Amino acid sequence: MKVALLAGGTGGAKLAHGFQVVFQRTPRAALEGPLPTEPGGDLTVIVNVADDTERFGLLVCPDIDTILYTLSGLADREQGWGVRGDTYTALSLLERYGEEAWFRIGDADLATHVHRANLLREGLSLTDATAAMTASLGVPSHLVPATDDRLRSMVQTDAGEIDFQDYFVRRHQADEVRALRLDGVESAHPSPAALVALAEAELVVIGPSNPIVSIGPILAIPGMREAVTAATAPKIGVSGIVAGKALRGPADRMLVSLGHESSALGVARLYAGLLDSFVIDEADAALAPAIEAELGIKVTVLPTVMTTDEDRAALAAELIRIGEGMLKG
Amino acid sequence: MKVALLAGGTGGAKLAHGFQVVFQRTPRAALEGPLPTEPGGDLTVIVNVADDTERFGLLVCPDIDTILYTLSGLADREQGWGVRGDTYTALSLLERYGEEAWFRIGDADLATHVHRANLLREGLSLTDATAAMTASLGVPSHLVPATDDRLRSMVQTDAGEIDFQDYFVRRHQADEVRALRLDGVESAHPSPAALVALAEAELVVIGPSNPIVSIGPILAIPGMREAVTAATAPKIGVSGIVAGKALRGPADRMLVSLGHESSALGVARLYAGLLDSFVIDEADAALAPAIEAELGIKVTVLPTVMTTDEDRAALAAELIRIGEGMLKG
Repeated sequence: MKVALLAGGTGGAKLAHGFQVVFQRTPRAALEGPLPTEPGGDLTVIVNVADDTERFGLLVCPDIDTILYTLSGLADREQGWGVRGDTYTALSLLERYGEEAWFRIGDADLATHVHRANLLREGLSLTDATAAMTASLGVPSHLVPATDDRLRSMVQTDAGEIDFQDYFVRRHQADEVRALRLDGVESAHPSPAALVALAEAELVVIGPSNPIVSIGPILAIPGMREAVTAATAPKIGVSGIVAGKALRGPADRMLVSLGHESSALGVARLYAGLLDSFVIDEADAALAPAIEAELGIKVTVLPTVMTTDEDRAALAAELIRIGEGMLKG
Repeated sequence: MKVALLAGGTGGAKLAHGFQVVFQRTPRAALEGPLPTEPGGDLTVIVNVADDTERFGLLVCPDIDTILYTLSGLADREQGWGVRGDTYTALSLLERYGEEAWFRIGDADLATHVHRANLLREGLSLTDATAAMTASLGVPSHLVPATDDRLRSMVQTDAGEIDFQDYFVRRHQADEVRALRLDGVESAHPSPAALVALAEAELVVIGPSNPIVSIGPILAIPGMREAVTAATAPKIGVSGIVAGKALRGPADRMLVSLGHESSALGVARLYAGLLDSFVIDEADAALAPAIEAELGIKVTVLPTVMTTDEDRAALAAELIRIGEGMLKG
């Protein structure tokens, strides 16, 4: 089965990893118990780039990197970002040179940014650079930036409009988000590889990522929402909001301050017209009838909190089963 | 006293450090015994850039960096290059990404190259970027690249023409050097700051660096030899060849394969017409009459092998004394 997964960072990365496990494309020594498998499956992750930033003159792609590290086994799973066992030798000298150090780039992570900048300098697109890097790290899935063009989430706060990473990392998401502006969106194009992945997919999944700043910017690229709609595969969304809260990050507060409901229903509404099916967490089982009634789509209640590799694979396998059911049905 | 020192990497860096100590501009806690001082002295190091190279798309300036690390106290003195206690986390991931790793760039060293590239990208000249970096690290001397233009030593070997770092690092100086070509020299200009330093100097020193690939490329920049000649200060050279051998690096073999003599006399001949005085090591005392006779300059015999901070300061102080003697005489 060919799966196209729209994703931001952490939640999307975990689900992508689950698919890799189910597709038996990831070493499974650490896994326990019988796990669902579907050998030969193929995953393309269409990744948000609107929280990309420049650090020390180098392009940093936090969502691509989180997925790259997760799918290659390099990720620091405790910390939730960066490379396991990374050192911070470079950052400490960069700080002495007067560079800003609030965005904590470890030495291995810096290697990623230096190498990517080198590939881009040589003329590769971000898509091609990302493909080269996933290949180098032995990642068995495809990572595709949603666009090769420059696209940046700008956050309007009471302190004025600030860069997304300013809001997210430096100011610890403390500001109330009044509005979002996607800088560059008018002239952005979906990456050709993303369009191919959607057209060829046998299952399209919108991952449990922040619907506003991770999935939103992907769908806002002119032509992307149309490409998702035009895809013939079953389309399933997974709520990143569980019991009204984001598992990580500011999605819940952001939904409320932007006039939405911080609930699985609130998330489903943002994907209205796009999905055939929606997956919500067991904690939100009571919301299923309301979502089905309001949006006219099938809702499935599943454990969606992915702590272990087993959790990740189980959710991926359930999504495949739902998709297969829809193909047959 | 204002000193202008022409220098390559290691030997030049040690002598520069000696001047800083004499000028009481470097913390001296580790020094023993009475040391010569000349408070208020001011050092400008005019640094070779012809062994600069690009690594991972970033400009690397080995001679500037060695002097920067030496004068800031960051240098790894055991190893002779790089930063003390540096880690190699980034390099190991860069290698996984397929980047060449034979040029061993540590994480702190990478920070230097990343920051420099960022300053250049912002439009600073190499001179201004270097000034900013020395200031950030609290270096009390001035480091000036010999030129802001691109200048590269290309080494002609039996294996063909290769990049200098290819010869020096990757191939461990194993090739016989048949000729040298200075790529870019025709269109290079001395950095304005170097010209000012030479014009204002009260003492000009050609450091004990490789006369072929460190000092040679500085003097080969159109206008630089003339600027040294035009300088009104006493000009003293220090032989980097001791008892026929280079203390470090391939200068001795390079001199021979290029048709010169690997001796203090051979070095002095390369500086013919430029110097008022030449300093050779005690081991070469017997060569003094021949050098004085052939070149018509005063030769002073001194300990020139700089192991400790005391050695460095003592040599710098002797050079100052020779220069002061010439000013009075």
